[in-house]
Formats: sequence, structure tokens, C-alpha cells
Amino acid sequence: MSVFTLDPRHEQDSIFIKDLTLSQLRLFNRSELLWLILIPRVANVTEFYELSTTEQALLSQEITLVSNLLKNNFPCDKLNIATLGNVVPQLHMHIIARRIDDPFWPKPVFGALTQPYSDAAATTLVEQWRALLS
Amino acid sequence: MSVFTLDPRHEQDSIFIKDLTLSQLRLFNRSELLWLILIPRVANVTEFYELSTTEQALLSQEITLVSNLLKNNFPCDKLNIATLGNVVPQLHMHIIARRIDDPFWPKPVFGALTQPYSDAAATTLVEQWRALLS
Repeated sequence: MSVFTLDPRHEQDSIFIKDLTLSQLRLFNRSELLWLILIPRVANVTEFYELSTTEQALLSQEITLVSNLLKNNFPCDKLNIATLGNVVPQLHMHIIARRIDDPFWPKPVFGALTQPYSDAAATTLVEQWRALLS
Repeated sequence: MSVFTLDPRHEQDSIFIKDLTLSQLRLFNRSELLWLILIPRVANVTEFYELSTTEQALLSQEITLVSNLLKNNFPCDKLNIATLGNVVPQLHMHIIARRIDDPFWPKPVFGALTQPYSDAAATTLVEQWRALLS
């Protein structure tokens, strides 16, 4: 039986927030938009359909939880939710808060952001998310 | 109580395949890639988290069904699954068959495709999907 190990590219591009029941929640380290990533802690899964029905239900719950926190606590007019995995195949779900006044609206933003957070800004945001989830 | 009505922009950009339990399955009318769209027949919903738990489970089942049919019957190395809705807010889920030899790989393809199917090719593909789903 394989053990889940986080792909090092997730480690590099995003910041750990918290382990939820199924997924690890991480902050994508691009400051232009608020962008969260849920990574189910299930070994060797690259596609949503490979999750069991129970795991799919848990992932839906966690998407709903993160979506509600985003909409209720941050500027957000529309959520963009996606699992692509063309470059990093380990299954991960992007949850991106879009605003009609964001600099990319209404275009998709995959591959478009470039600016990492400052250490201070990242720490503040991660602490805020941990408080929201506690 | 509101009644679900398909957004006319879906009508224009995609072709009806079949009504599943929750969603209407449509073929996105761009021939460069095989691209399906699931539109839950629920009135006034723009976000995944607005679906009930039961509706989320049904949508997950339908994503899994379409994903398996795509992987088992067509060339497909990776699925791209997304709900964006920045332009057409009525909730819809894109399920896109990507190939490592497709002309856009590994880039995302939202907004990138331009070529509609011929009438004959669309009819053949829709009939093939209806047979797969029957």
C-alpha cells in the first residue's frame, strides 16, 4: 500500500495551511489573487474519478467549506474551481476568488500570476485561514 | 419557485447530448479537443457550494461517469475539470480530454479553441455519446 507524499512542486509553489479530513489545504503563493489549493491525501491519484464515492463527498464538503469562507470573509464575486494537473499530475483542486475588478477579469488565470507574497503577508493570511477553520 | 432554463449562451456554444439525473450533458462545439459540459438543471445556481449535498453527490457521479467514458473510449491522457463561470455564470462543469500531443498541451485551453464541428462530425459524436450512455 502506497503512502501519500506531497509532490515537491506543491511544496514549492504553495504554503501549508491545515490538514482537513481528506485534503491538505494550501495557499497558492501568488499574491495577485486569493487562491487556495485542496490536495486530497490519497496516494497515486491524479483524476477526480479515481477517488472513491466517500472521498469525492469529502472533497465536495471541503470545497464547500473553503468556498463559503472565501465568499464570507474576502472580496469575491465569482469562484473559479478546477482540477487540471497537466504539469503537476498529483490530484489537486484550485479554488480561486475572482473579482470583477481584478486585473485579469474575466479571463482564466491559470499560469497568469507571478508575484509571490512577502513573508509577512503570507504569515498573516495563513494565520487568518487557520483562525477561520478553527 | 424558479424553474431551470438553459442560458442561451450554452445553447449557442454547445450541442445537447442527453439529460442525466441532475445535469444536462452537452458537447462543446469546438472541434480541436473533445470537451463535454455538465449543466445541473437547478435554477439560479452559479456556484458549486450552492448545490445541496445530494446535488453535489449527483454531480460527482455524473463527472465520474463522463470521465470514465472519455478515458475508455477516446484518446485522453489527462482530464481537465473546471467550473469558472466568469462569462456565463449559470453553473456548468467543463470536462476536457487532454492529450500530451494535443496542440495546446500542457497549457489550459479555456478561451483557446475556435473551430466548430461540421454538422456531420457533431451528429456522429453526439450519437456516439448517446450510445455510450444508453
